[in-house]
Amino acid sequence: MIRVLVWNEFKHELTSETVKAVYPDGIHEAIAEFLGKEDDIEVKTAYLDQENCGITKEILDETDVLIWWGHMAHHLVPDAVATLVRDAVHEGMGAIFLHSAHHSKPFKALMGTSCNLTWRETGDSEIVWVIDPAHPITRGIDRCFKLEHEETYGEPFTIPNPDKVLLIGNYSGGEVFRSGVLYERVNGKIFYFQPGHETFPTFKVPEVQTIIKNAVRFVAPTYRTKIDCPHVRNIDDSEGYVIVKK
Amino acid sequence: MIRVLVWNEFKHELTSETVKAVYPDGIHEAIAEFLGKEDDIEVKTAYLDQENCGITKEILDETDVLIWWGHMAHHLVPDAVATLVRDAVHEGMGAIFLHSAHHSKPFKALMGTSCNLTWRETGDSEIVWVIDPAHPITRGIDRCFKLEHEETYGEPFTIPNPDKVLLIGNYSGGEVFRSGVLYERVNGKIFYFQPGHETFPTFKVPEVQTIIKNAVRFVAPTYRTKIDCPHVRNIDDSEGYVIVKK
Amino acid sequence: MIRVLVWNEFKHELTSETVKAVYPDGIHEAIAEFLGKEDDIEVKTAYLDQENCGITKEILDETDVLIWWGHMAHHLVPDAVATLVRDAVHEGMGAIFLHSAHHSKPFKALMGTSCNLTWRETGDSEIVWVIDPAHPITRGIDRCFKLEHEETYGEPFTIPNPDKVLLIGNYSGGEVFRSGVLYERVNGKIFYFQPGHETFPTFKVPEVQTIIKNAVRFVAPTYRTKIDCPHVRNIDDSEGYVIVKK
Amino acid sequence: MIRVLVWNEFKHELTSETVKAVYPDGIHEAIAEFLGKEDDIEVKTAYLDQENCGITKEILDETDVLIWWGHMAHHLVPDAVATLVRDAVHEGMGAIFLHSAHHSKPFKALMGTSCNLTWRETGDSEIVWVIDPAHPITRGIDRCFKLEHEETYGEPFTIPNPDKVLLIGNYSGGEVFRSGVLYERVNGKIFYFQPGHETFPTFKVPEVQTIIKNAVRFVAPTYRTKIDCPHVRNIDDSEGYVIVKK
Repeated sequence: MIRVLVWNEFKHELTSETVKAVYPDGIHEAIAEFLGKEDDIEVKTAYLDQENCGITKEILDETDVLIWWGHMAHHLVPDAVATLVRDAVHEGMGAIFLHSAHHSKPFKALMGTSCNLTWRETGDSEIVWVIDPAHPITRGIDRCFKLEHEETYGEPFTIPNPDKVLLIGNYSGGEVFRSGVLYERVNGKIFYFQPGHETFPTFKVPEVQTIIKNAVRFVAPTYRTKIDCPHVRNIDDSEGYVIVKK
Repeated sequence: MIRVLVWNEFKHELTSETVKAVYPDGIHEAIAEFLGKEDDIEVKTAYLDQENCGITKEILDETDVLIWWGHMAHHLVPDAVATLVRDAVHEGMGAIFLHSAHHSKPFKALMGTSCNLTWRETGDSEIVWVIDPAHPITRGIDRCFKLEHEETYGEPFTIPNPDKVLLIGNYSGGEVFRSGVLYERVNGKIFYFQPGHETFPTFKVPEVQTIIKNAVRFVAPTYRTKIDCPHVRNIDDSEGYVIVKK
Repeated sequence: MIRVLVWNEFKHELTSETVKAVYPDGIHEAIAEFLGKEDDIEVKTAYLDQENCGITKEILDETDVLIWWGHMAHHLVPDAVATLVRDAVHEGMGAIFLHSAHHSKPFKALMGTSCNLTWRETGDSEIVWVIDPAHPITRGIDRCFKLEHEETYGEPFTIPNPDKVLLIGNYSGGEVFRSGVLYERVNGKIFYFQPGHETFPTFKVPEVQTIIKNAVRFVAPTYRTKIDCPHVRNIDDSEGYVIVKK
Repeated sequence: MIRVLVWNEFKHELTSETVKAVYPDGIHEAIAEFLGKEDDIEVKTAYLDQENCGITKEILDETDVLIWWGHMAHHLVPDAVATLVRDAVHEGMGAIFLHSAHHSKPFKALMGTSCNLTWRETGDSEIVWVIDPAHPITRGIDRCFKLEHEETYGEPFTIPNPDKVLLIGNYSGGEVFRSGVLYERVNGKIFYFQPGHETFPTFKVPEVQTIIKNAVRFVAPTYRTKIDCPHVRNIDDSEGYVIVKK
């Protein structure tokens, strides 16, 4: 079983009637619902207003994949929580950052860059293209799929050069965006996926659900350990360094 | 001085009235013309119907940057000529492949892949976006520029994962394409640039000319030598391996 | 079941008493033997002196992973056979190139570079270090392992910048070498692994066997299809492009 | 002129007689001395015990390349100073991190990883090998060079997969280490270079000086600007995004 924790800021859904209409129980519950139907996935949720944002070292130790959605309240996530997430990824926990989570503290801490982009809310449609059809994350997706409305994100997107660009979006207003990118940082895999604006029912689109399910399986760790900075006496000295394969 | 050789298939211009109207002296002469105005660039041209395609080892030895345009007659370029080009790039010669040269023999030999793509000729406009504004090749280009008409190229483009994606195109018909990508192969730099269909005056567009001029300067070698496969007796043995820096 | 084809040049074993003593039935049989003990792997072998080198399109169509060892007779492999292998990798077949196969025709065709290196046969020992302990190919390997004797391979190794460097070797004579590197080319995964000189019993070393077994599982395709270069009429036109997921 | 700021922790030199004997004026002055002899380089220095560590936004705005050495007092560098450095690199400032600066706050902030490694102080010699002889940073360096004594650094080094590995070290004790690695983060270039332990006269070795001089020229920016996260109304709207090329 892959143990997934879906974290949501859960603010827009409480304050905006538009958002509430789309995601009455919150984006986290919408994602948890379709993931929970999978036989090999076990889902929990957490959100900002819970104690410590619903995140502790113990919780992350029992999480294989963390999914993160945030937007208007990135600054309310304590630095210590972002650090916990970053360190868990280094140990091997998988992480999926959705849409406006490009500016979340843990994503920026993992990237080491500003993660800026250009944006516009004018109801553009988006065609998302598969760049790498052989990748497990794009399995079951045709050459492209269309989202009737998405917030427009534009380049330059100030991320490190991705290990892989899996998806690129074409917006009807003229922009392009690297909509699905993949990284490895120490032992952990990270997937950033652009679709998912709060005012559109993007997380109900079958292709979006397929990609998130595929991504959960792809970034789930097969190995998890802390790699420390040991002082060794010679090359046969393994003190302080233990290979623990899951 | 950067010594540039512009190679063109030069077939469409002789057989199609449409193409002849756009490039009466051939695509190679159109490119040579704007490059020749630069103080630091010295241009020659060559084309398919010349003896040995106008390419010998001696000519490539005196070429810093080779620019290649081909389309309908890739198969008429002898394998030996493609091998000469590939080997010169390995030694350090820069190479710029334009538009339909994605399927040319030297480009495919350097990539090691099929370099396929999806295509369509329906008069789409294309907006070319700058992904990396700090790169020397995009210097002087704004966030994006528009081509009124270009042949539509679509993903997946079966190239190796580029060292860098500098440009991505958005077509009015809905496609996206990695329009400017960069590679290094042994000592040589390679730039593939998608715009340049023979029936449109793309090579007269200022931004296209700027990018090609920037690319010439970027891929021009500062080092050129053959790296062999020497048998050495010990680590101080430099027989068969000489560092020649230009 | 993962269907593996182990291809060997099988020349040294017939002409050198030293090599025959180490691998009496050939390197291919030594590799096939330890792979054949795995429940999820099914092994066949082929060698140079068989008709068409024991390789046809039909055979490759039924091969998930091709393992290749060659050295003194690279030039006797017909270009057409190298092309078959290259194209099968593009479709998704996994490939593992061992030791002196760095200069084999199919490896060079896939890399697009000269694949040169520096070499020395003076009985150096080699310590092979794990650079990426979280990667499936290094599973079960400690921080490093030692080979009592290996042919010394030295940098520069004129390959494209690898997608990943998994292993680096330290030779007692002073050299270093990127001993395990990983590539993707179109749909196929490629692993190059440096240990395996014909005069040493390297393929009997447990860690070497573990890495080859891990690599077989890692490069085995989950997707296999030819990605063509279709002319499409519009973005909904899928003629000539079929997603076939295995 | 390339304006270089050499930053040093400057603690070991004041507290250890061994270190004082090697670098009586501090590592920063030793580096400034050989850089200052270059016609195209202008050097200043700064160190931990100065006000605000000798680093302000104004100072970084007038710095093209920052060189950083630190070890025992990483934790005494305020987070705000590390943030200033990180942000200046994002804008285009070049950065060179030397030896134990792998654990400095600005390097870790830029990498997004723990930057751990294995280490040993047993007086190993190190042979540093050139992996990419065509790169400007290795210009003037032969196939390899030898350091009589260096602190041993071992893999795994938990950095992101480098854009390029330029140098790999072979230690007499058996380790290997990626001794020279290159990154780009937003507009800035970053070079990490492993040699430079405080108890050895490493910064007096000609090849080490050559590499640092080459690196200064390579990471110096030709473009510097802040890339923000602007809200645009349409693709022609450049409000909040200005291309400023230096």
